[in-house]
Amino acid sequence: MARVDLPAIPLNPESGEPLYRQLYVSIKAGIQSGAIGDGVRLPATRELAGQLGVNRATVGLAYELLEKEGLLTAHVGRGTFVHAPPASDGVISFASSRPASELFPVEAVQRILQSTARDGERLRSLLQLGSPLGYQPLREYLASDGSGEVLITSGCQQALDLLARAYVQPGDLLMVEDPVYPGLREVFHRSGARLIGLPVGEIGLDVEALELALRREHPRMLLVTPDFQNPTGATLPVEARQRILELVGRHGIPVVEIAIYRGLRYEGDDIPSLRDLDASRSVIHIGSFSKIAFPGLRVGWVNAPREVVERLAEAKQWCDLHTDHLSQYLLHEFARSGALEAHRRQALEAGRERLRAAVESLEACREVEHFTRPQGGMSLWATLRGGVEAERVLEMLAGRVTFLPGTAFAVSRRHVHSLRLSFAGLRPQAIRKGIGILSEGARQAPAAGERYGTPHMAIV
Amino acid sequence: MARVDLPAIPLNPESGEPLYRQLYVSIKAGIQSGAIGDGVRLPATRELAGQLGVNRATVGLAYELLEKEGLLTAHVGRGTFVHAPPASDGVISFASSRPASELFPVEAVQRILQSTARDGERLRSLLQLGSPLGYQPLREYLASDGSGEVLITSGCQQALDLLARAYVQPGDLLMVEDPVYPGLREVFHRSGARLIGLPVGEIGLDVEALELALRREHPRMLLVTPDFQNPTGATLPVEARQRILELVGRHGIPVVEIAIYRGLRYEGDDIPSLRDLDASRSVIHIGSFSKIAFPGLRVGWVNAPREVVERLAEAKQWCDLHTDHLSQYLLHEFARSGALEAHRRQALEAGRERLRAAVESLEACREVEHFTRPQGGMSLWATLRGGVEAERVLEMLAGRVTFLPGTAFAVSRRHVHSLRLSFAGLRPQAIRKGIGILSEGARQAPAAGERYGTPHMAIV
Repeated sequence: MARVDLPAIPLNPESGEPLYRQLYVSIKAGIQSGAIGDGVRLPATRELAGQLGVNRATVGLAYELLEKEGLLTAHVGRGTFVHAPPASDGVISFASSRPASELFPVEAVQRILQSTARDGERLRSLLQLGSPLGYQPLREYLASDGSGEVLITSGCQQALDLLARAYVQPGDLLMVEDPVYPGLREVFHRSGARLIGLPVGEIGLDVEALELALRREHPRMLLVTPDFQNPTGATLPVEARQRILELVGRHGIPVVEIAIYRGLRYEGDDIPSLRDLDASRSVIHIGSFSKIAFPGLRVGWVNAPREVVERLAEAKQWCDLHTDHLSQYLLHEFARSGALEAHRRQALEAGRERLRAAVESLEACREVEHFTRPQGGMSLWATLRGGVEAERVLEMLAGRVTFLPGTAFAVSRRHVHSLRLSFAGLRPQAIRKGIGILSEGARQAPAAGERYGTPHMAIV
Repeated sequence: MARVDLPAIPLNPESGEPLYRQLYVSIKAGIQSGAIGDGVRLPATRELAGQLGVNRATVGLAYELLEKEGLLTAHVGRGTFVHAPPASDGVISFASSRPASELFPVEAVQRILQSTARDGERLRSLLQLGSPLGYQPLREYLASDGSGEVLITSGCQQALDLLARAYVQPGDLLMVEDPVYPGLREVFHRSGARLIGLPVGEIGLDVEALELALRREHPRMLLVTPDFQNPTGATLPVEARQRILELVGRHGIPVVEIAIYRGLRYEGDDIPSLRDLDASRSVIHIGSFSKIAFPGLRVGWVNAPREVVERLAEAKQWCDLHTDHLSQYLLHEFARSGALEAHRRQALEAGRERLRAAVESLEACREVEHFTRPQGGMSLWATLRGGVEAERVLEMLAGRVTFLPGTAFAVSRRHVHSLRLSFAGLRPQAIRKGIGILSEGARQAPAAGERYGTPHMAIV
């Protein structure tokens, strides 16, 4: 199956880094991570310039740099094509934060498909149009704590998009983690919001920084991933969660909790979610089956006060009418039959092993100055020693090992020396080998200072 | 299954009709058509006023009118609830333009589910993350004419939404049919576009009006449904299609062809699509499985020049990453196995009969001044005699028969005397009985002049 994932191209005219260089870095990261596949035709310079609202020469310059590095080839009259380093079976990719296919409980899904196939009348009703709010039995299952209402969404990505549509106006200020999941940044960036990135440390969002920021600014919304944050894997302690709720309560700021990795704790004890801790029951909680089950079935949910759910459902109607009916049904069967929980236990076993392999390998890796030690999730965050830039390492590795450089997750900081390692999709042996190769690449990469100066957008 | 479809509430401050009245009519139509179910809690006045950007008193006034008619009940401390006329098995609904569940070829779908269940390794790959562009075999199937590229979308609604996101800026002018599908109007209205509604007659979009409009305005885009337009059922003759292509070619206007009803011709000969006729291959063609197969599986597509597909795919990434993998697979199997074509032949038989029942009943109905005579699709458009307003008729019918009044499809005109009758989901007997009851209701309804004056927005 030919895959042509088009790149996110987030340009920030105020970052102090030339736009052509930002564009070059973005496309290159896409090619090197495999997100932009070999042979893909890139838009013409005029076209891309129009899309991004930049000068055509800016795009031309970026393409020129990529061509010089052999990553693009121009064919007269046909266009500009990606010439990616040949992918081989040997390539080890830390680039995608998704579950391991080999762990999917295919037999359980087969049984559910078979029983669905036997029930013709249910199938008939699933084939008919549904409700924007979602398949009612699944909604009830997910609202089993009795609190608030549930909207079924086409994955977590759509939940974020609906929030942007229903609540965010151009110019609105939002507070988010920095580094943050690019799909979150993009969706709000595109709705015209200004994002303030709050630093994330080993124990999650820096609550002191949040407090300081809230003294100066009144954001439209705060978005947090308390458990196993993407990309850092960091988890907020219970005290920090309580403090966040106090702060947003005092300032009257809605808080969105992204809880899609929450079910994936490999070590330590569960910590109550923001929604669990919130006496006012006003937290907007986003869940998804993508990380704990299957990302190919696009089903997520929002658990929130009724008026929020209704407003999001209204927006959802104009996006896709409703979420795919059959997948909602299958995932409800998968969950209520106990197959989800059985799968999760298996995934936790594997995840624990994989996390351990990653941590042990990084401990032995002198080229990494520090890295986060998550207790679950799919990714960790490493920072290179001696001013080495992650993108340079990616170049040195020439496709043998891939990952996403820190710059892909940038909000108010550039994170040039950091990188995300998504370990959950790789077997322990591949993790060890991959980190070994990465370490070698980092050793050979040219050390460089932070060459673009202090970013202008850093607010906290 | 409790269904809580939230209403579209399109308010037009320039229509000359007071906003509270527009809101009242909108909510009432929702309740009477069954789109807003009995027992649903409506947003608080403050909440809804905030969402719609209107004064709280406006919402209060609309609620008051609805309460007086017994359609809303307020419970102290709990909110305002819909009190819909009791739905009974006897209710005949012409309100929804969707296929008849009883015609779904459930056995064919059962067979495909069973074979999918047998192929564990394929299932494993379907459960994993896919491409924003769609499932490759389905893309290739849909692009079998070799022209352009295909993007799989989560239904036609998402295709419209992606066009709005990728191409429409606030203030942009768009030309659309009037009356038009409300989901089209809403999605572009929300993106800040100004819509010019071009009249639709028995033979579709009024091409003279388009020509005149194009002399005065340069829209960002023209959107047309050449075959069995929703709501009128009208179809454009080939000469009109050629003329439209000439006009948009001369003026350099992109044209979007909504072809979701195209496969449902019950009488007469197929007419080439705009995309077929377009030598420049630049038409943006939207298709969907919702009308010809199953709306519960949310799969549509855009067939367009490569640069358009790439731009829409980029936007789609931030909406929902990609369309549900399993449903794409199932529909591809359904189509390539021949089951889709077999089903379509059956649906055409039934549709022909239903269309005939509707037309014959309307011919005998003195209360209808004129109505369209489609050769396919799911709906027709009737206009009442003697200045009777469709909303008054809906009131008289008290839920025994429902339909959507013309106002629900309004762009530059109000269509107060017209209504859409969606016949495809009803058996011939129910159609005859329903039109009989409707006719009786129209006879009893108070005749009223066009009470809100000429709309200010009528441009052509």
